[in-house]
Amino acid sequence: MATVKLISYEESSGKVREIYNDIKKHRGTDFINNFWLALANNPDQLERTWNQVKQVMRGGTLDPLTKELIYIAVSVANSCEYCIHSHTASARKKGLTDEQHAELLEVIGLAHHTNGLVSTMQVDIDESFKII
Amino acid sequence: MATVKLISYEESSGKVREIYNDIKKHRGTDFINNFWLALANNPDQLERTWNQVKQVMRGGTLDPLTKELIYIAVSVANSCEYCIHSHTASARKKGLTDEQHAELLEVIGLAHHTNGLVSTMQVDIDESFKII
Amino acid sequence: MATVKLISYEESSGKVREIYNDIKKHRGTDFINNFWLALANNPDQLERTWNQVKQVMRGGTLDPLTKELIYIAVSVANSCEYCIHSHTASARKKGLTDEQHAELLEVIGLAHHTNGLVSTMQVDIDESFKII
Amino acid sequence: MATVKLISYEESSGKVREIYNDIKKHRGTDFINNFWLALANNPDQLERTWNQVKQVMRGGTLDPLTKELIYIAVSVANSCEYCIHSHTASARKKGLTDEQHAELLEVIGLAHHTNGLVSTMQVDIDESFKII
Amino acid sequence: MATVKLISYEESSGKVREIYNDIKKHRGTDFINNFWLALANNPDQLERTWNQVKQVMRGGTLDPLTKELIYIAVSVANSCEYCIHSHTASARKKGLTDEQHAELLEVIGLAHHTNGLVSTMQVDIDESFKII
Amino acid sequence: MATVKLISYEESSGKVREIYNDIKKHRGTDFINNFWLALANNPDQLERTWNQVKQVMRGGTLDPLTKELIYIAVSVANSCEYCIHSHTASARKKGLTDEQHAELLEVIGLAHHTNGLVSTMQVDIDESFKII
Repeated sequence: MATVKLISYEESSGKVREIYNDIKKHRGTDFINNFWLALANNPDQLERTWNQVKQVMRGGTLDPLTKELIYIAVSVANSCEYCIHSHTASARKKGLTDEQHAELLEVIGLAHHTNGLVSTMQVDIDESFKII
Repeated sequence: MATVKLISYEESSGKVREIYNDIKKHRGTDFINNFWLALANNPDQLERTWNQVKQVMRGGTLDPLTKELIYIAVSVANSCEYCIHSHTASARKKGLTDEQHAELLEVIGLAHHTNGLVSTMQVDIDESFKII
Repeated sequence: MATVKLISYEESSGKVREIYNDIKKHRGTDFINNFWLALANNPDQLERTWNQVKQVMRGGTLDPLTKELIYIAVSVANSCEYCIHSHTASARKKGLTDEQHAELLEVIGLAHHTNGLVSTMQVDIDESFKII
Repeated sequence: MATVKLISYEESSGKVREIYNDIKKHRGTDFINNFWLALANNPDQLERTWNQVKQVMRGGTLDPLTKELIYIAVSVANSCEYCIHSHTASARKKGLTDEQHAELLEVIGLAHHTNGLVSTMQVDIDESFKII
Repeated sequence: MATVKLISYEESSGKVREIYNDIKKHRGTDFINNFWLALANNPDQLERTWNQVKQVMRGGTLDPLTKELIYIAVSVANSCEYCIHSHTASARKKGLTDEQHAELLEVIGLAHHTNGLVSTMQVDIDESFKII
Repeated sequence: MATVKLISYEESSGKVREIYNDIKKHRGTDFINNFWLALANNPDQLERTWNQVKQVMRGGTLDPLTKELIYIAVSVANSCEYCIHSHTASARKKGLTDEQHAELLEVIGLAHHTNGLVSTMQVDIDESFKII
């Protein structure tokens, strides 16, 4: 019940087909999730978004699992159900254990809790936090 | 300009003073940030919240810095300015480098980006993501 | 699975029936969407809300399609799935093309992206932006 | 009081200086707002973000002012104060009149209002909205 | 540093002056807060909003203080700092005690906490909750 | 389709079984909703969360129904569908009438509305609101 059509692999051609093939190759699976099938309505945006995801989620000094946990945390706070499902699945593929998921849950719960407390109390930012 | 009074260390007594001392000892500093000074209006809540923070942010299998990054990610998505400042300061104390902060920024930016795309397109959750 | 009953056209009477008739007439269709059927539990609120929607979404100097795009943007950021579906449908009726929808997607994605960056970096507002 | 340093034009060099010059040229002003000065800590991200903003906010079939209104709407819902200030300033430069701003206010207010109503009532999505 | 001008009582005339007088009379004070001074740029919206606030916040079966607490809760979750300040001030005028404020804080904190947990775990809605 | 398994009463043992029994006893029903069945993957977190909910939602000077309304308001603004369903069900059990629900709807709608207006106008906080 998306607000845009999904472009299946079979229907795809040109740039969309190329990106689809790159997703398959990069992930080592024939499965392409709905996000990309929806984004394919705009081949340029599909390409830019995929390149950005590849670039940001791999490499660098933060490990790929940590990046997925950050992604989940943002998606939870934004109530993006699809994103929570897809990035929890990604995190599990990258080795997230049940124990780590339970800890993630605790940090996310606590962060929301104190965010709510701080916002209700409208606490002033301490001077010492302002120095970069 | 908080909506509650701040209880300074000097004014504190009883349970509040005890928690304040525990915060100082635990953190190895005399500085107690405004969040705790505000929470001290309700000594029981101060105690419960401090105990929870101690428990959740230390120990476990996720390292303390990773937990701070998750905390920042939630706080950013919830627009909690105080929380972003205080947990970025904590993360730097726990070793966050400029390079890692730049990567955190990229993951948070990208997560917000695709959250927005997914929400606009109202993408259905793939069946394969639903299996736990 | 709403938290309130839906009042169908057939069940409606009095003020609710009048508003339902006005919705049908105004929109040139017999279809009344669930939002109004749910709101009808409080006939006064149904009337006020409908009058406000009629007044705000038509007339003025911003064209009706632009107003729908703003509505969608808010609904996306608030994760209101029903609202995204209903206002995307409205926008399409008012002429939204696939190309424009793709552009809407890009602006919403980018706005979320930079909102996230700004919030993480806690950028100070430039003096020149403060002058009205 | 940002969580990152601001890199002034004077301090800038290499890729950062090039982007700064492109911002100045593109906008026809010597003023570069804090967002870019903060992002410059990561020259690659500065470059990618600037290129994306240039690309998305200009061209296409939606006019530049409409895009700014969508941007403001997202920023309001995300409570991004900096973004609201900077994009309201941009919108005014692109011709936003007081009357249009008042209408924008009404649409954003109403959208938040009905988002809240829908969320409280948990209204089911009408079948007719699901067909793309 | 608002994005619109504030219209002071002295500058006001016509409909704006009338509403300003009604606010003063209704509240038994000469003080008019900035929200109304900003809204006065659009006299019709000022009038509609004031009438709505008067109507919703008074009367009915929920007492005025309870309504202020609900208002604060929404404003906290939406990170609307102005709204939190103004409605906490209103709540105190309507009799909110320090003890009740502490309880409000606990409920808001807990609600954010479990919202975060539920969103991370993506819990299915129980069948028994769906029956109205 | 949760991201964690649900632990049924039949499968439960040890601390989880004890908490489940306490939930049943405390609520006077054999029904345990999915939130607790999901949280049971981490028995310590199940115990802490249940104890906190019992403690915060009962007792004190705010009555239990008022607390549920605050809970619903937060959950609506956070778009937590499960939470809205479960706490609306709780509120009805605690006596919420249709008339009160309609008033709740109006306050939540209005609060979102003015939150949106304030955020768009970026209204400065009045000095008189800053004094605690």
